[in-house]
This record gives sequence, C-alpha cells and structure tokens, in this order.
Amino acid sequence: MDVQAGGRNIAILDNETAGFMGVHSSDRVKITCRNKSAIAIVNVASDFPLNFIGLYEEIQKKLCVEDGESVDVQSAEVPESLRYVQAKIRGERLRENEINTIVKDVVERHLSDVELAALVTALSIHGLSMDEIETLSKAMVKTGSTLNLNKRPILDKHSVGGIPGDKTTILIVPIIAAAGFTIPKSSSRAVTSAAGTADRVEILCPVNLTIGEIKEAVKKTNGCMVWGGALELAPADDIFIQVEYPLAIDPLLLPSIMSKKKAIGATHLVVDIPTGRGAKIKTIGEAQALANDFIDLGKRLGITVQCAVTFGEQPVGKAIGPTLEAREALSTIMGNGPPDLKEKATGLAGLLFEMLGIKDGKQKAERIIKSGDAERKLRDIIAAQGGNPRVKPEDIKVGPEKAEVISDQNGGVLWVNNEDVARVAREAGAPKEKAAGVLLKAKLGEHIKKGGVLFEIYAERNMKLEAALKLAYKLKPVGLSRRPEERMITERIPALIERKKTFILER
Amino acid sequence: MDVQAGGRNIAILDNETAGFMGVHSSDRVKITCRNKSAIAIVNVASDFPLNFIGLYEEIQKKLCVEDGESVDVQSAEVPESLRYVQAKIRGERLRENEINTIVKDVVERHLSDVELAALVTALSIHGLSMDEIETLSKAMVKTGSTLNLNKRPILDKHSVGGIPGDKTTILIVPIIAAAGFTIPKSSSRAVTSAAGTADRVEILCPVNLTIGEIKEAVKKTNGCMVWGGALELAPADDIFIQVEYPLAIDPLLLPSIMSKKKAIGATHLVVDIPTGRGAKIKTIGEAQALANDFIDLGKRLGITVQCAVTFGEQPVGKAIGPTLEAREALSTIMGNGPPDLKEKATGLAGLLFEMLGIKDGKQKAERIIKSGDAERKLRDIIAAQGGNPRVKPEDIKVGPEKAEVISDQNGGVLWVNNEDVARVAREAGAPKEKAAGVLLKAKLGEHIKKGGVLFEIYAERNMKLEAALKLAYKLKPVGLSRRPEERMITERIPALIERKKTFILER
Repeated sequence: MDVQAGGRNIAILDNETAGFMGVHSSDRVKITCRNKSAIAIVNVASDFPLNFIGLYEEIQKKLCVEDGESVDVQSAEVPESLRYVQAKIRGERLRENEINTIVKDVVERHLSDVELAALVTALSIHGLSMDEIETLSKAMVKTGSTLNLNKRPILDKHSVGGIPGDKTTILIVPIIAAAGFTIPKSSSRAVTSAAGTADRVEILCPVNLTIGEIKEAVKKTNGCMVWGGALELAPADDIFIQVEYPLAIDPLLLPSIMSKKKAIGATHLVVDIPTGRGAKIKTIGEAQALANDFIDLGKRLGITVQCAVTFGEQPVGKAIGPTLEAREALSTIMGNGPPDLKEKATGLAGLLFEMLGIKDGKQKAERIIKSGDAERKLRDIIAAQGGNPRVKPEDIKVGPEKAEVISDQNGGVLWVNNEDVARVAREAGAPKEKAAGVLLKAKLGEHIKKGGVLFEIYAERNMKLEAALKLAYKLKPVGLSRRPEERMITERIPALIERKKTFILER
Repeated sequence: MDVQAGGRNIAILDNETAGFMGVHSSDRVKITCRNKSAIAIVNVASDFPLNFIGLYEEIQKKLCVEDGESVDVQSAEVPESLRYVQAKIRGERLRENEINTIVKDVVERHLSDVELAALVTALSIHGLSMDEIETLSKAMVKTGSTLNLNKRPILDKHSVGGIPGDKTTILIVPIIAAAGFTIPKSSSRAVTSAAGTADRVEILCPVNLTIGEIKEAVKKTNGCMVWGGALELAPADDIFIQVEYPLAIDPLLLPSIMSKKKAIGATHLVVDIPTGRGAKIKTIGEAQALANDFIDLGKRLGITVQCAVTFGEQPVGKAIGPTLEAREALSTIMGNGPPDLKEKATGLAGLLFEMLGIKDGKQKAERIIKSGDAERKLRDIIAAQGGNPRVKPEDIKVGPEKAEVISDQNGGVLWVNNEDVARVAREAGAPKEKAAGVLLKAKLGEHIKKGGVLFEIYAERNMKLEAALKLAYKLKPVGLSRRPEERMITERIPALIERKKTFILER
C-alpha cells in the first residue's frame, strides 16, 4: 500500500473477507508468500476489495512481496506474550520466561499498540517487583545491540532529567577521559524538553556514530558523546516509549535507563537525581527511594551505582536551547561560565573518581579543568567525532532574532520555574531550531532592578520570537519579590489558570 | 490516501515535517480546509513527502478535502478526556462531567486506541463504582440513538451469554407479544461464539431494520427481533469493544448492556444469568452479586429489573449454529423441540409476566405456546420484518455436508463442554457459514451405547467438515462415564494440554 505503519506489522482485510475467515480486527494472520511468512495484525475495513489483503510497507518488505502477487493468508494464534499481558492486568507477578517472551514479542512487533498500552497501564498501576525489573532490564539488553570495549572500568553518568540547561555531560566526559578512564557516553535527544544532551553536543560535532565508530573514537580519546537513539541498545524501550508518551506514564524508568547502561558495558555509574520544587523529584525522601532502586538494580546487573541528589529548583547555568547551551559548556570548560554548572560537573565527576578509590575526587576534577586538560580532551573528542576542534565560544552563533524580557519591579529572584522556562524556549523554536532558546540574566537569590533584563529570548524566526515573548509575559517564569516585610503577596491569581499536561520524557 | 482507518481520525506526517512542527506520533493536529476543520491523531512516518499530510479516508471525508489540495495544519491540544483517563490510571474516582467528556470524546473519535486501551485496562483493574457505572450508562445513551415508542410498559430480556444454542429469544418475544405486551428486542451477532441471536433470527427474516422500520413492525405485531449493531444505540460501546476484544477484558459489561436497554426505552427487563461449570458465571455467589448490580443499576436508570440464574452447564437445546438453531426454535414454538429450551423460554417469559403483576406467569407462557398463539405471533413478526411467514422447519436446509461423531464406549453423559462445542461449530464454519454447526444427540444424564452417535457436525464445505471432525475427536466435547463403581478415572491426561485463550464477548 506504500504507507508505513510506524514499524508495526499491519494488514488490511475487507469486512466480508475477514468474516469468512473468522478473523476480527486485532486478530493475527499468517501471511505466506513463496518461502517467506510473517505474522500481521489485522485491521478490518469496509469497501476494501474482496479477497485482497492490504499490506503496510513494513510487512510488505519483510515478505518481499510485489503489488498484486498472490499470498496465502491464514488465521494465526495470538502471541504467547498476550497471556502474560493479561496476567499482569490481573495483578499477577510475571516469571522470568514470561518477561523474556514479552520483550521478544515487543521487539519483533508481535504485540499491537492496544496490547502494549494495556501492558504499560497495568505496569503503571500494579508496579513491578525488583525481580521483575531486573529480568526486564536483562531481557531488554539481550534483545538489543551491545558495545564491547574489552576494558574495565567503564564509567558512565546519567541524569533522571527534568532540569533545563543541564549540560554537565559536556564537562564530565572530558574530565573523566582526561584522567585516563573510559567513558563511552550515549545520550538522548529532547522529546518534551528544550534540549537533550545529544542536541547540545551536535552543535560541536556529529553525534550519530555507529557502534564501530564509537569504538574507534573511544580508542583515540577514552570518551565519546553520541546519540543513543539509532544504536538499538534496548530497542524494546523505544517501542514502549511510543505508548507511554501519549499516556504520560513512565513505569519502565529504571529498566529503561539501566538496560542502556548495561548495553554499553558500564561498570561504574553515577546517577544525578535533581530534586526540589519544579523538578521531577520533589523531596529528599522520594530521591532516596529512587536512589535505593538504582543501587539495588545496579548490583543485580553488575554495575556499581552511586546516586547524587542535586539542587533542582532552577535551570543549570544560564543558557537553555541547544546552541546556547553548547556555547556555555565550552566557555565553562575553558574556565569561564556560570559557577553552578562548574560546581555540578566537577561534583559528579568527583563522585566517579571516588567510586574508583581516588581521594578528593572533586578537587581532582577541578584541577583537570584548571590545567586545561579537560578543554584539550573535549577538543580531541570533538575531532574524533568529526567536528572542528578549534571552535571558539564566539564562533557559535545564536539567534539571530533576540528579545529581552524586562522586570517591572525591583526585587530578589524568588523562583525560576523550570517548566515555564522550557516552554518559552520551545515556543522560540528549540530544540529543532537549534539556535533558539532562553538566556537567563538573573538566578535565584540575585537582585534585579525595575527595567532590568530578567532573561533574553533567541529565535531563528521573528514569528517564533514574538510567540515566545508573548508566552514569557504570560507565564512569568522568573518571579521576583521585595523583602517579605515590604510585600507578602507576590502574585494575584484572579481566576482559574489553565495548565497544559506536564510530562517530561527524557531517557 | 484511499485507505480506511477503522473509523479513526488519523493523519500521517513525515518525521522531518513533524519535527519542525514540534509534533510527535500520537499528538493531535488541527487540520483546516476552507471553512471546515477537524482534529486528527498523528502517525509519524519516515520517507513520507515533506510538507505533505496523509489523510485516511475518515478524516478526509470529514474535511471534504481533495487529493493535492492545500490544508492548514496546526499542533492541537490533547483532548480534555485524556486527563481523566490519566486520573483513572492513578485510581481516582471520575466525576459526572468527566465521564460525560470521556464518552463524548470516544464517540467523536478524539481518543486514540492507545488511550482507549489504557482506559479499559485501568477500569478493569480499579473497577467502577456504581455511581460511575450509572453516569457512564446515561452518557452512552445520550450520545446515541433512541427508540421512542410512546408506550408503557416496554418489556425486554437479556442473557449475559456464554451458552451455545441459547435461542430462547425466538420463543420469548412471540410469547410476550402474543400476550399483548410490547417487546422491541435488539440482539447482537456472534463475535466469539457460534451464533448470536441476530444470526439465528436472520435465517427466518431480515434483521437489519432501521429505527423507523422497527417502529412500524412493532406497531403491527407488538414485537420485533432485530440486529442492534447498526442502530447506533450506544455507539461508545462499539468503540470500547474494539479494544476490549484483543485484551479479553470486559470491564464495561453492565453499562454496555443497560445503556442499550435504556436506549430502546425498556421499562421491565429480565436478565438471564447462566451459571455453572463451563459458563461465564461459575457459582451462585457470583451470579447473585452480578444480579444485585443489574437490579441496582436498573433502579438508577428507571428500569425494573429481575434476574434469573439459569442452568448453564450445557448448551440449550440440541442445535448449535444459526440455521440449526432457527429450525429448532421454530419446531419448539410449534410444540415439538427439546424440553429444556421450552422450559427456559416459558420460565423467563413467565418472570416478565409476573413482574407486571400477572400470576402464574410460566403457566400463562406455556398456554400461549400450546394454543398456537406464540407460533402465529412469530409468523406475524417474520412477515413484518420481511421474511416468509409460512416457513416450515423442514424448509430450513442445514449442511449439506454432514458427519457423525461416534462414542467408543458405553456410558452416561458426564459433561457437554460449552466452549468446546462452540469451537467445533466454529471450525465447521459457523456463524458466517450459516448452515454449519453441531447437533447434539445426547445431553447430560442420558445414556449412550458404544458405537452410538454423540453428535452430528454440519458444514457447507467438506474441508471445513473434516477440520471440525478432527477437532471434535481431539477435544471430546461430550464426556461419558460408566457408573462410578465401574471406572473412577474418566480420562487420562498424559501431558500438558495447550488451551486457546477463552473469551466470550456477547453483547
């Protein structure tokens, strides 16, 4: 039919034809053409030609069948894993072989979207035991590609995300690699945020390396910063995300993250858990519970894990949006840049050093920046991945459209709303329009005068700039207050505020 | 694109085009063409032409847009009801306006299959309160067609199903109508069974009447027996079924049934709950709980409900399959036929009479059959719906292919497995090949000799007959035993028996 079904194996039968076969919508058929056969999920349509079967591109290519060719179509059993999906709906614990069967059927696209949605909904409601999480993580590794560097230790870091402007990876990888350790970092692109690490790094060099190219780059420089999306590290996860995203549920957070770490061979991992109002994790109690799960799952997978609860109440650094962030990261590794970014990066890198038995890890990380070793290593990595190693911060062009958001009062910054900052940056065009974004001019605790600039908005197109500016004045992502004794009421809310669905999907 | 999406409003965008719009798979877009606009759910494809949007037939027709015409496409908000689906996943109770919004969005196809699957899964796990069930039932009535006969009382009967050969409706409707009461009965076709009531009645006369035609038929004869599927009585339910069926869950049983009864204006309803091993409902306790729910919901909807727990351990009568069953029903109303069928039909009709204050209802129903009034009324109804009122049982042709299943021992019938009987009848071609099916020659407690006929299989095609015969000897749907003191072991099970998924969907 010359139409793709988003990876799904779907075939169309006419109502009448399906009726005579005893096949309903969502049933399976086995289609055989010459010596090849494949299972497809049936959509029943009316007004489709009798005794014809319509094949979407995926199943047509799998069968190598030509338009108009005769195929044999027979009703087929439902996949075994559907029984286990039903068991999970009933709240039963899944056994190892059952989880393995589910993951295999997911990767081979034998489960429909309806069945996958039921599974993630049931997992979200009933939860998973740590045994199930372990088995699921291992199954997701087994059904995907892996990176074998034949080295130990392999270091890695991960952030559970949710904080705009978090470009610490661009500092941590060079610091670790400069110290002689191996850190093959794979990252995601933004789904719901203003920039993912892969989007940021791509400003400096290509990120879509193959497994072979990663091996070569790491051989040269000890580290890399690549996009994980095309590496097929845990392909089941990419399929789960397709149904989790519209439902705004994320029951597979742990196996999703940890399977990808296992697949690249990580032996030591630091997990950054940004915590606070406006972060995914609101309280230290939640952060500790999540940390425990990461550490426990790490043990089961043979990965030494330590977690860091980090301050998550405002963006990291001042720049939000791929290009603005790449420029800020480069400045910071060169010794300038905002202090909180440097603090966070050296703190996390220091934790990794200390996990390997090195004392005073943070000081070591700071020395590696100060000596210029981190900058040189970053430039080596940029060169190894095919970028320009001599790039200067001022070469990295942002905008060109630009506007300032002005304060209408004196006051100290009381909040910088993570979600609203990200929304303004997205409205300006980020992450697809890479030079768009937000540059904060004031952060928590800083003082600003009436008429002063709260933040700047950058955009590639004037229309988007205008839209972002309008949204910025509506949302007021940066809130000021006078001293409490001067004014206790910081904002009036005269009527119901309509909120968009908030769901941050970063993996 | 000249392809139907099964009623769904789906549009296709290329990966690149979607990226620039900030739209992901499963997001919504608002498509505007001249003065019409509609919301569609996006599927993102690769290799699709840039800056083009692919429209499936449903959305293309809604917009009246021509191939190649320019349309305006904008990212649109998710429907409000998605928030309530998410609330139900979290286990929250839904309020009246929230349920109304969900049902409206379901009927207008604003929710994707993934979202619908998540909803029915969450409903299946968390259950519904009776308040939620009531609101949902009313919302399903409000969003569909209704039948207004301007009469009281309006009688109705319903079976929760699961028992092959249950053709009691074909007797009950004429009995009630012959007594002067109004009974506009709508029924379903088989989904997973060997015959639905609409399939059975269709052997005698057309069943796909419009609301207008129903009114006319009922005016003439007091009753009708029509297919409810095209009447749009509770269209939300038909959409829910599409996702419930592959998951084999049925959380909306009560609102599904009762909304349709309310839509045809029923004031008095008897619900048949077949109970026993091999039935949907296994124990009297379960049957009583379900009965309570029906009665409670009836009160809330203004319908007087009584329930009957009926013997459900074997098929009703001896015939299974549309044609065989129509012939048996006709024989029985003419005074012949199997005694259990007559017993059940007069018992249920009698209950309806007694609900209206008539004493000795069952005896009244028996008299109506004996006098020939029921038969005359059935023939009037057949005529009013466009069938041949002079049809004789022997005119109704079954087969023509026929085979006998022979007993290899002497013994009394210990079980007649409902599910296996239905599977054999389906393998023979029922319900689509109408003259196919099973005719039992022995029922529970009857004695059969070695070499005697257990049941006959009918089919339209020899290939199907052979397949059904093979399945029959494998499944052994009729089990015999000698007296216990002769042989206590009735069957050896030497290895694991593979079972197909069992899920009976009858509405």
